[in-house]
Amino acid sequence: MDLCTLSVKDFLKRVAEKSPTPGGGAVGCVVASLAASLGAMVANLTIGKRGYEDVSDHMESALEVCENEMTYLCDLVNKDVQAFDQVMTAYKLPKNTEEEKAARKVKIQQALKTAIEVPFDLARRAKNIIVNLERIAKWGNLNAISDIESAAHLLYAVYYVAKANVMINMKSLNDEKYSEWVKEEMGHIESQIKGSYERILDVIAKRNG
Amino acid sequence: MDLCTLSVKDFLKRVAEKSPTPGGGAVGCVVASLAASLGAMVANLTIGKRGYEDVSDHMESALEVCENEMTYLCDLVNKDVQAFDQVMTAYKLPKNTEEEKAARKVKIQQALKTAIEVPFDLARRAKNIIVNLERIAKWGNLNAISDIESAAHLLYAVYYVAKANVMINMKSLNDEKYSEWVKEEMGHIESQIKGSYERILDVIAKRNG
Repeated sequence: MDLCTLSVKDFLKRVAEKSPTPGGGAVGCVVASLAASLGAMVANLTIGKRGYEDVSDHMESALEVCENEMTYLCDLVNKDVQAFDQVMTAYKLPKNTEEEKAARKVKIQQALKTAIEVPFDLARRAKNIIVNLERIAKWGNLNAISDIESAAHLLYAVYYVAKANVMINMKSLNDEKYSEWVKEEMGHIESQIKGSYERILDVIAKRNG
Repeated sequence: MDLCTLSVKDFLKRVAEKSPTPGGGAVGCVVASLAASLGAMVANLTIGKRGYEDVSDHMESALEVCENEMTYLCDLVNKDVQAFDQVMTAYKLPKNTEEEKAARKVKIQQALKTAIEVPFDLARRAKNIIVNLERIAKWGNLNAISDIESAAHLLYAVYYVAKANVMINMKSLNDEKYSEWVKEEMGHIESQIKGSYERILDVIAKRNG
């Protein structure tokens, strides 16, 4: 089922239930999507507004990025749940014979990689959105600038949500090369997000005078 | 209308629309509610689990706090929208005569106070949830501890979302005593949230070994 078709209230209830999915990863995807929708709102409130005519193209393009991410992240919510469920299924495979044990081990490792790929992707998405928010923070409708600030705070947090979910699955993964690569990539994403985050807060502080 | 009865997808669309509400404040309430639901999930995954019998009472009580906050915050989403809409309505009041001007000024100031009270309340709620997450981080089901970490990151961000929304409305408020008091209170909440946040990350790092 598509969890994004649930009402906000029912989604909250589903998270709260005595079941590990949907958990922090899925919630992180929803929060990133909410941040993207705030970006879209401010772009929409800038397009066609008097005094902002010369940034209209930038806002149209920023709006498109935000809308695409909103859709993408709604799918990622469901992928996160599926990935975690696959890990649980793999752990429950029989381990009576040596063959079964070996097959189970392979399945667990495969499932863990998928469970890492989803929050890893979430981190990249958060980066993509926050980089895109920079131009809205710079040139967007000043009346709605606190909404861009709100989105920036949330995306910065989403990165650490994604990291927590990458790291927890990495603990049981045996592929050192892959682990090293993911950690390195996450480090790059972290510094890019941090850079955008700081620039956004800075430009908003200046514009707010 | 109750925005929390909208599907997640439709809520995102409503935020993204060319209208200032629902905006950052309402989104902050949803995110705080999502964090509370993660807390409830981990409490639920701890209650009745072998090896965690002696913390069952703590988890029951933590669960209750999280569930209450989930409900409260869903209402606060709607209150945030109403408060902002009242500010917009007040600004649109006629100002042709001196009487009208004076009456409009009073209405704007009243509406601004309500628009400050909602994110101010959101900050208090975020504090209440994160303080409550501390015992789940300490004693909750170790397998789900990354979900508490995720919730902590989100609540820390929610505080700054709340602050941005308090400050933006404060800019046009003329009541200095009230403004000073709110700023002072927000400062207390900020240091309490920061303290809880750091303790949670610390205890989780230790438990993860």
